[in-house]
Amino acid sequence: MARDRFISLYKHLVDVQKGAGKVELKSDDLSKALADLTAFSLNYLEELTKTDLESKVPNKEYFMFENIETERNSRPVNKGLFISEFDTKNCEKIFRLDFEGLDENELNRSLYTLAISYCAACDTLKKDDKKTPGTFFENFIGHLVARALDVNPAKHVTIPTLDEEIQLPTDFVFDLGEGNNRLHLPVKTSTRERVIQVWAHQRVLDGMHGVARFKGVLAALAETNKQKDKSVVEVCLPQQWITYQMYIAQMYRVYYLDIPEKYMALKNRYPFIQVKPFSAIFSEIEKIKRNSND
Amino acid sequence: MARDRFISLYKHLVDVQKGAGKVELKSDDLSKALADLTAFSLNYLEELTKTDLESKVPNKEYFMFENIETERNSRPVNKGLFISEFDTKNCEKIFRLDFEGLDENELNRSLYTLAISYCAACDTLKKDDKKTPGTFFENFIGHLVARALDVNPAKHVTIPTLDEEIQLPTDFVFDLGEGNNRLHLPVKTSTRERVIQVWAHQRVLDGMHGVARFKGVLAALAETNKQKDKSVVEVCLPQQWITYQMYIAQMYRVYYLDIPEKYMALKNRYPFIQVKPFSAIFSEIEKIKRNSND
Repeated sequence: MARDRFISLYKHLVDVQKGAGKVELKSDDLSKALADLTAFSLNYLEELTKTDLESKVPNKEYFMFENIETERNSRPVNKGLFISEFDTKNCEKIFRLDFEGLDENELNRSLYTLAISYCAACDTLKKDDKKTPGTFFENFIGHLVARALDVNPAKHVTIPTLDEEIQLPTDFVFDLGEGNNRLHLPVKTSTRERVIQVWAHQRVLDGMHGVARFKGVLAALAETNKQKDKSVVEVCLPQQWITYQMYIAQMYRVYYLDIPEKYMALKNRYPFIQVKPFSAIFSEIEKIKRNSND
Repeated sequence: MARDRFISLYKHLVDVQKGAGKVELKSDDLSKALADLTAFSLNYLEELTKTDLESKVPNKEYFMFENIETERNSRPVNKGLFISEFDTKNCEKIFRLDFEGLDENELNRSLYTLAISYCAACDTLKKDDKKTPGTFFENFIGHLVARALDVNPAKHVTIPTLDEEIQLPTDFVFDLGEGNNRLHLPVKTSTRERVIQVWAHQRVLDGMHGVARFKGVLAALAETNKQKDKSVVEVCLPQQWITYQMYIAQMYRVYYLDIPEKYMALKNRYPFIQVKPFSAIFSEIEKIKRNSND
């Protein structure tokens, strides 16, 4: 039963977003669809067993949800960030960017709780489904950012070459209007070695349209990995990020919901990659729009 | 039984290659290990049922191997390239680059038959094993190229920056000696959308060491995909390759064992990406070494 309702709420979300053949990400309808899906997921998760996991990540503790019926368990959930008994009446408020009464830390925890809710529920309900948590998270981030900018994104760019026009599928790109730069927003639940794609796409945009025409902002959920013995590690490749930032292209910001310390430290050394908690994006939105690099 | 012997021959291959902690790719021992594994795979495949697949690829026909016991079937195998009843006494000769008596077309078919042998056998013997066919194919290509160049590759490059040294893991890189350029050789069983990594790594090498210091050569097996209804398609993204070649970096050659027509056509239009059958690499080896772009 839970599974059927869960799947139909997810399908509704995807339908709303695709509204009329366009990417319709900033709508109130999508706020509601996201709120319904995350509220349902959180209520469902409340019924499951929480099992502590051995954390090999300094200063972070993790648990997983276990569904005894399906015999499946979830990805690691950050204990310090996940809000148990989250008041699901507040889901829609948050998706409408009404953060009243929440300080930075509470906002961060609320956003993490909502983001992980669908993903963890899905892990325990469906077999080997890696795709829908990714799509959910894309819509989750895309919606919040589209509302903050009051602009719907595109999912492709058109390149006029001397001979013909090429359309290239991309992550979200936002046209912020004359006088502003544009925004290139890749979204990933985790990055691993595939992260080089993010810098490479930024490089293509820089090459096509000129450097600093698009600001690159990566949004990611976490870098945790549950190993075979059920202990939790964070898979981080800071040396490789440094190399990509030096030699491929320059990302303007990287935001995480469960931020790895190893990446946060990158802002203090050359080439100074700015990695921050995702909640910080809302106070930086004017900076992101502005055509400058401060 | 077949399965155990199969797995132990694979393990031996990996051990030989890792010899003494280095990448030991050009050795006679590896020729022998590759010959033993491919001969075993081919003999095993002879016992299986071949079932024709509906091909949606113009001018190409495909079949799959079916193992009735394990109830598993293989990836698509190209009918025009696979040599049935291949004389396995010749495996080792080919890995030692003794191509006597083979014209270009026979060489191409022999190489395809050997390359697909382990992959197809693995599909029918092991569940969801995507890793070992990739590693096998890396060793297969790596060995042939290392022998042709008489040089063992490295799997990392060292980048001296102003502050410290960074070691970056890479695909195979070959130091061809003073006066020559170096070779960057990524190897993939198929590329799909992950192919952007190839151009991005080339970009990093160009950025670190100067443009044209490393020649980039991609070697790939095939782009076939067996769909749910068992029909076969080729997944090709020629527009994206064009964009990457224009804006990220310039690959010198792309070689395929089962070459897609859509990619072969790229050599006739800007930016003129040279995509050729893998057998062509042996007659181009001096060109690849030479420090020029003709």
